[in-house]
Amino acid sequence: MDVMKYLSERIAVVEKELNSWVPPGTQPAELTKAARHLLDAGGKRLRPCLVMVSCEAVGGKSKDAIEAAAALELLHNFTLIHDDIMDHDEFRRNVKTVHMIWGEPIAIIAGDALFAKVFEALTGNVRRLKLDKASAVEVFDTVSKASFEVCSGQAKDMLLAKSKSVKEAEFLDMISGKTGALTEASTKIGAILGKGTARQVKALANYGRLLGVAFQIRDDVLGVTGQKSKFGKPIGSDIREGKRTLIAIRALSIVKGLEKKTLLRVLGNENSSGSEIKAAIEILRKSGSIDYASRKSEELVSKAKSQLNVLPDSDAKEVLVKIADFVVKREF
Amino acid sequence: MDVMKYLSERIAVVEKELNSWVPPGTQPAELTKAARHLLDAGGKRLRPCLVMVSCEAVGGKSKDAIEAAAALELLHNFTLIHDDIMDHDEFRRNVKTVHMIWGEPIAIIAGDALFAKVFEALTGNVRRLKLDKASAVEVFDTVSKASFEVCSGQAKDMLLAKSKSVKEAEFLDMISGKTGALTEASTKIGAILGKGTARQVKALANYGRLLGVAFQIRDDVLGVTGQKSKFGKPIGSDIREGKRTLIAIRALSIVKGLEKKTLLRVLGNENSSGSEIKAAIEILRKSGSIDYASRKSEELVSKAKSQLNVLPDSDAKEVLVKIADFVVKREF
Repeated sequence: MDVMKYLSERIAVVEKELNSWVPPGTQPAELTKAARHLLDAGGKRLRPCLVMVSCEAVGGKSKDAIEAAAALELLHNFTLIHDDIMDHDEFRRNVKTVHMIWGEPIAIIAGDALFAKVFEALTGNVRRLKLDKASAVEVFDTVSKASFEVCSGQAKDMLLAKSKSVKEAEFLDMISGKTGALTEASTKIGAILGKGTARQVKALANYGRLLGVAFQIRDDVLGVTGQKSKFGKPIGSDIREGKRTLIAIRALSIVKGLEKKTLLRVLGNENSSGSEIKAAIEILRKSGSIDYASRKSEELVSKAKSQLNVLPDSDAKEVLVKIADFVVKREF
Repeated sequence: MDVMKYLSERIAVVEKELNSWVPPGTQPAELTKAARHLLDAGGKRLRPCLVMVSCEAVGGKSKDAIEAAAALELLHNFTLIHDDIMDHDEFRRNVKTVHMIWGEPIAIIAGDALFAKVFEALTGNVRRLKLDKASAVEVFDTVSKASFEVCSGQAKDMLLAKSKSVKEAEFLDMISGKTGALTEASTKIGAILGKGTARQVKALANYGRLLGVAFQIRDDVLGVTGQKSKFGKPIGSDIREGKRTLIAIRALSIVKGLEKKTLLRVLGNENSSGSEIKAAIEILRKSGSIDYASRKSEELVSKAKSQLNVLPDSDAKEVLVKIADFVVKREF
């Protein structure tokens, strides 16, 4: 089976669906443009793919989950717009962030508007599908709880950035909420809409959570080892912003002396020069902290894949395996 | 019947319910404190009252709609937190606004977290109640669409503030979204959860929308004629911020010469002195624009009350009439 073909066919359908939930040209035009900006800039569409493929992996059709797939991408984009304001990020997906173009007030409301559309899209899906009330309610419950977890995770992220010593467990808990909650919600609602068994829904939920955490760790690795042109964000900006990543936490727990001093000086110092950032990255690399993080994300992906054992063999199952492999190998 | 007793009994139940959706002490503590700040500062609890009383007005029990009542107050508070950031407001309900205490990043995420809880609370209500799937879906549809309308209304509000000439119809459309959408959602979902007939649901939805618009116009009147101690916000701040209100729009369309010049100079001028604000308010008063706005809100309230004719007589119906009367007479 051609995985890329399989996914790109589904992504094409998602793009159309996304367009229908935030139609270009809707008044007020400024709001619509701001809300669509990151959607139009592309992105991997990981979450909608997870929704649709999970639906198929339990025997459903991808179109049974199309509005929900769009909903999860809208939800993801809402969090990106607000996170970029909070983190003062200037670029994302190789374009300027929403608040950099339209200002913070419009960026706040553009995020809110996308969040509102999430539940409207879910409503559309649940209304259209022959689904019992309990399953319909479960879809809303899953997405609303995941949304709260994402907020909580983002708040923890901001608070951890101020903390001098962050433990690995605290960090993993934070990204589990910030990233894992949404990928779990994606696979879980896909499985519910596909009318999977309780066991299948649970397994796919676990797969989604583990995948999200692995994804975030890989993101942090790319943040120091990636290429800006592929990754879409400036390399080393996490260091300059003092963002806690598994890499930084590991390094701070093992390096000593001058290297530790250098790291502590550069991390979170907005005035760090390019060469200071480079020196810090070199320390991270030499200490084995980047490899440590890479191994961690590989372990998580391996656990995620083992969850899929409860599923019957299918193209969709194969694609879920491939998505997991992609998460730890990707360069973008 | 003692209306105040009727309402305060229900408000007491709502307060408990609100506490359970955002429990004090939840980690991360900073986020919870910020999210609870305006909730704890009080407020009229108009929207939850509308939800519960509408439920009763069609023959339901107020406890059938208790989570939904809390949800609408959470939704309202989410919009307040974000609006205050966008409008740079420093005080609300006689306390400092959330972003003034915790900073904008935490204020943004606190609003988002409350928004997420809205749908979790609705899910709880719908799950608990014996309700067909179509009605359950209608509740989510109503609230998600209203949320989007509120965002759209807030965006229009910000964009109108930049516009030189705002028409009365544009203004009314804006506040219909910004305020009317939520009050309509309150009465409508109350009626759905109370298992009202389609005709009753429609009439209560209309009542809610008209009431919300009247409420907003009264708010703008109090913004120039009220007492800060009762109203909770500095008097005249709308003028300083250049906020378009029915009063300002009316005045700009009828005053001429020096008075118009004075108004145009003071409106939206952040450096306006206290005496300039007073002079502007005097021009608004003399031109009859404040009276014009008051009459408009009275007309809307009268229309709102006439919607209630389809309901059987009950204490709840009487309370809805009294709430409508309160909206145009209130000083806070």
